[in-house]
Amino acid sequence: MAEERALAMVTCTAPVNIAVIKYWGKRDNDLILPINSSLSVTLHQDQLKTTTTAAASRDFTEDRLWLNGEEADVGHPRLQACLREVSALARLYGVEGELSEVARRGSGSACRSMLGGFVQWQRGERPDGRDSLAHQVAPETHWPELRVLVLVVSGEKKQVGSTAGMQTSVDTSPLLKHRAEAVVPERLALMMRHIRERDFEGFGQLAMRDSNQFHATCLDTFPPIFYLNDLSRHIIALAHRFNAHHGRTKVAYTFDAGPNAVIFTLADTVAEFVEVVRRSFPPATNGDQFVRGLPVGAASLPEELLAAVVTEPVPGAVRYILHTKPGPGPQPVEDPSQHLLGADGLPRRCA
Amino acid sequence: MAEERALAMVTCTAPVNIAVIKYWGKRDNDLILPINSSLSVTLHQDQLKTTTTAAASRDFTEDRLWLNGEEADVGHPRLQACLREVSALARLYGVEGELSEVARRGSGSACRSMLGGFVQWQRGERPDGRDSLAHQVAPETHWPELRVLVLVVSGEKKQVGSTAGMQTSVDTSPLLKHRAEAVVPERLALMMRHIRERDFEGFGQLAMRDSNQFHATCLDTFPPIFYLNDLSRHIIALAHRFNAHHGRTKVAYTFDAGPNAVIFTLADTVAEFVEVVRRSFPPATNGDQFVRGLPVGAASLPEELLAAVVTEPVPGAVRYILHTKPGPGPQPVEDPSQHLLGADGLPRRCA
Repeated sequence: MAEERALAMVTCTAPVNIAVIKYWGKRDNDLILPINSSLSVTLHQDQLKTTTTAAASRDFTEDRLWLNGEEADVGHPRLQACLREVSALARLYGVEGELSEVARRGSGSACRSMLGGFVQWQRGERPDGRDSLAHQVAPETHWPELRVLVLVVSGEKKQVGSTAGMQTSVDTSPLLKHRAEAVVPERLALMMRHIRERDFEGFGQLAMRDSNQFHATCLDTFPPIFYLNDLSRHIIALAHRFNAHHGRTKVAYTFDAGPNAVIFTLADTVAEFVEVVRRSFPPATNGDQFVRGLPVGAASLPEELLAAVVTEPVPGAVRYILHTKPGPGPQPVEDPSQHLLGADGLPRRCA
Repeated sequence: MAEERALAMVTCTAPVNIAVIKYWGKRDNDLILPINSSLSVTLHQDQLKTTTTAAASRDFTEDRLWLNGEEADVGHPRLQACLREVSALARLYGVEGELSEVARRGSGSACRSMLGGFVQWQRGERPDGRDSLAHQVAPETHWPELRVLVLVVSGEKKQVGSTAGMQTSVDTSPLLKHRAEAVVPERLALMMRHIRERDFEGFGQLAMRDSNQFHATCLDTFPPIFYLNDLSRHIIALAHRFNAHHGRTKVAYTFDAGPNAVIFTLADTVAEFVEVVRRSFPPATNGDQFVRGLPVGAASLPEELLAAVVTEPVPGAVRYILHTKPGPGPQPVEDPSQHLLGADGLPRRCA
């Protein structure tokens, strides 16, 4: 019983978020304060999540961290910043702390994952960053028809990391400066309206434009940074052909600092578009695991859609599609058997 | 002898130009007036040229035009605009007309080919375009060491044409507007100084940055326009590795609305860089015709340069390299046997 009193342990899952108004560039590197506000959709943890267990005990003599089972360096400045913030919150035990500020110190855009649904990360004005926080724009229940398809593409080589990349962009791109100052404020207000009104035409168009503009500022960086490749161009062109065929915005792509494509669409379009992707990028293997996540119904494609939209298939280029939707923020895990750490504070697998 | 008096015929060759401060976007579509000034290098006609023969006679009853041996439509508005301008000049016979204005009406950037060396096309302020003209910044003899390598790449499918593309950019890209208004004026002045001072470091850096920014505005266009592909990214990365290895700007890339790469460099670097390109993109055939144009000496690459710069070769991706340099403006061809038209005013081959 003495051991139980001495050890406090909590396990939480946290979601992934996908920005529709992109964050790229810091105005303060230590505090991780952005040059512009951003807005994202939190994805459902039934399909994608991280799980973290934290244990605290008076018996522990040092901070230790395991990441995917491997011990990591607790001396990393960003981790130290988080631990400092958490310990400040602990002193205020019983008062709810501003968790998005803690998360921001670890990785800027992670602060948007502290809330579910549609989340804005405000740039803030204060030099100390106290007003650079995440706020929920609308909960995950707000737009029940909204769906997300993650197109996981086949191996691409190493890319420029986002921390180094955005710093170079801030230092060298005249277009990024203009984007942050003059373009994003207007877009952010517009995007919030589209979300409030569940206007997929407006939401999708603006999400695509903002993804493109983020990558444009990467190209305006010197030396230039490329996250889009020939396959990304293929997927972009496919989405535009699909929308053109339907005469309206049925799917919207967005790309981050990596090769995977994320598609926003509505529930009634998922089956058809998944089939278009399957025809455009025929799975290399038998395709059993090509669609994962939420169930996808069968779709038969009209001949004229096939002819207009599916041109020059690239076999094997897309590894699989993950079908998901907006979801809630971090969830505490009550079942003690799910803790990743044992009673000794060490990882269970490695114990 | 009566026939000779009645027929006036002139043959001219004209050069190609490559912009180092790019033109993209019109403020007047009919007059072909640009949203920003641009600056180019006129290439030598010993390696690349067009040849045009014009014949006029009181006996001719209509305007006719042959392009690469095929009769073309003289009703095209741009051609009509040129013919109108030329006939106005003819009325002023004996007074030198502003030929760059005529050329601009045919194809905007063509006006820069009316002069040799380093040429600026001024945006101008007048609504009638009379001040949107090409001016020589420095003659072709100004920078004798400057060399140009055109990397002609293997077949790429159809691209968005520049006329339609730039119109969509003007209509949809917030970054293009900012570039034209706020970025180019400063860059143009800087580029003229680099040229005046024959400062390759400054010239090359700015040429690369401006090429990248032009393509960034294409990506910010909606739907986005892509002229750079994975091979372009390869060539860009190669140039940056080459410069990084040497610790200074020895080569500078620029890309227009097509897949070929243009490299600016100095005479003392040509042989080494050509060899780097040959190792990076090994010719598919025996490589006899891989280097064309001005002679290129032999180069042996130091091992450490090879290891640092030549990574992951892509066989056959570059068809050939054309080696050329800055050259003069249009040249009249005095030898009558070189006329493309016969005494009857019809193409000689087709006569």
